[in-house]
Amino acid sequence: MGSEFKIINRYFHHPIHRQDVLLGPGDDCALLKVPPGQTLAVTIDTLIAGIHFFADVDPKDLGYKALAVNLSDLAAMGATPAWVTLAITLPDHDPTWLAGFHQGFCSLLDEFNVALVGGDLTRGPVLTITCQAHGFLPEGSALRRSAARAGDLIYVTGDLGDAGLALEQLNHSALPPNAAVLAKLLCPTPRVNAGLILRQYAHAAIDISDGLIADLGHILEESHVGATLHVDDLPLSPTLKTIPIQDAYRLALSAGDDYELCFTVSPQQQTPLLAALGPLKTKVTCIGVIEPTLGLRLLTADQRVYEFSSTGYEHF
Amino acid sequence: MGSEFKIINRYFHHPIHRQDVLLGPGDDCALLKVPPGQTLAVTIDTLIAGIHFFADVDPKDLGYKALAVNLSDLAAMGATPAWVTLAITLPDHDPTWLAGFHQGFCSLLDEFNVALVGGDLTRGPVLTITCQAHGFLPEGSALRRSAARAGDLIYVTGDLGDAGLALEQLNHSALPPNAAVLAKLLCPTPRVNAGLILRQYAHAAIDISDGLIADLGHILEESHVGATLHVDDLPLSPTLKTIPIQDAYRLALSAGDDYELCFTVSPQQQTPLLAALGPLKTKVTCIGVIEPTLGLRLLTADQRVYEFSSTGYEHF
Repeated sequence: MGSEFKIINRYFHHPIHRQDVLLGPGDDCALLKVPPGQTLAVTIDTLIAGIHFFADVDPKDLGYKALAVNLSDLAAMGATPAWVTLAITLPDHDPTWLAGFHQGFCSLLDEFNVALVGGDLTRGPVLTITCQAHGFLPEGSALRRSAARAGDLIYVTGDLGDAGLALEQLNHSALPPNAAVLAKLLCPTPRVNAGLILRQYAHAAIDISDGLIADLGHILEESHVGATLHVDDLPLSPTLKTIPIQDAYRLALSAGDDYELCFTVSPQQQTPLLAALGPLKTKVTCIGVIEPTLGLRLLTADQRVYEFSSTGYEHF
Repeated sequence: MGSEFKIINRYFHHPIHRQDVLLGPGDDCALLKVPPGQTLAVTIDTLIAGIHFFADVDPKDLGYKALAVNLSDLAAMGATPAWVTLAITLPDHDPTWLAGFHQGFCSLLDEFNVALVGGDLTRGPVLTITCQAHGFLPEGSALRRSAARAGDLIYVTGDLGDAGLALEQLNHSALPPNAAVLAKLLCPTPRVNAGLILRQYAHAAIDISDGLIADLGHILEESHVGATLHVDDLPLSPTLKTIPIQDAYRLALSAGDDYELCFTVSPQQQTPLLAALGPLKTKVTCIGVIEPTLGLRLLTADQRVYEFSSTGYEHF
């Protein structure tokens, strides 16, 4: 048995309690059973040291976030998380790092009853984590980017811009971010439970990973519609309210990494949706409206055009 | 729309002709439908420049191999390939490289009617490719590593050691590998069609990625059995027969990257299996027998013990 397998057994095994996992890690493939009538939702994301996270980040936070960003994609479709696979490239075998990563990753696995069903551990010069998540949806119920309709109200969960502020402060500021905004950057909450409710009431949804304007832009493009956003309605945390308002709006509109959901809902479904979301205690805020005229318009509370140019994180 | 998406659209889109893909790339998740009565087989593998392939390898060959190694895992379970996702980390945006990779990857997609349903394209310092493949199996029919039984015959497909010879020649020799062994290293044939037949007749199977002894060792360990291999029966290519026989045996026993299948079959099923495999024209060779006594024994044709120590590729 190669030492790769000893490492996997020690750090990447986690008890599986799901009946739909017929065979977990350890063979050529995992064997899985999708429940009858359910569609499989699949998403894959890569995080790279020095690009998507600081190389010296707490491995526990990194383990959590590597899974969170994938669960966020499932949430944006309204899928119930079920299984994940994990491919990790490590520069060396650091037991303390692996134990920390495992702890963070598994804490989120357990929170949503997700099974780690397979993986690949490789040695390479740059710490790289690729996670693929699988979830279930009743057929035809997915929240599609293409489903927004003129007249829909545009909502977001949580507050926007905190993760962006934390990142700017870590990169450029003498002032370290406070605990609240740092937590939004390091350990974003995947809005899985909100997504499950949204799929019963909402039209379109997306998770905000590249910034509100960029991600809402995907909904507008796929749905062949436009929108007006009211910048004075953007949900800002107490911390973001302490910085110059232009900076706060810039971060809320264009900074990535918040992993909140942006969704659209018809005016008729607004009240039942809000009632259904109530028990979750997840803040949701109406920030605009979908319109037939293409393009995105930003307005202030007094109906003036808000000038803004940045469009979000560009990967290349 | 970020330039990431333009690149994806240009180089990573490939027409999907499968009815079971309800939604392909472009949303938060792909939406997929597993046929009734079928189990889902899932495998994930990472290839890293400088570790698993030479950074200057032909991108067309790399695209082919990135998919081939995953299809090989499906083959080792006897699964029918269906869908893949692809996560690529690129140091820069090189259109020629991307076009070549796409061509090689898609040629194998088409050969097995596999759909590329999602992906993630990221920028990072080291070219890294993680591919996840999904296949189908009738429930209960998977070829498990744990299913070998004492008395089973041990078979392998194809020839062993060619990829290892090519790698040694590329690394250490003034003599470049010939085209035949180089092709085994760069473009291994995933034994998908053989796997589909094996699942009806064979007991255990594994694909040989880390070397015969290491990979057969997984079958022995998981099945709680031992084996005797006859080294003089190892299938060697014409090229491997031209090098010193000890080197040929060493490569056939311990070199990785061949991606042939090693499988076990009861003596009763041997004849019907060989008859069923006949039309494929895939060479298969009996190289030993599963025994109740734990451990692996190597014998020569005249029943002498063959001394050998190396155990295969160690990832750490």
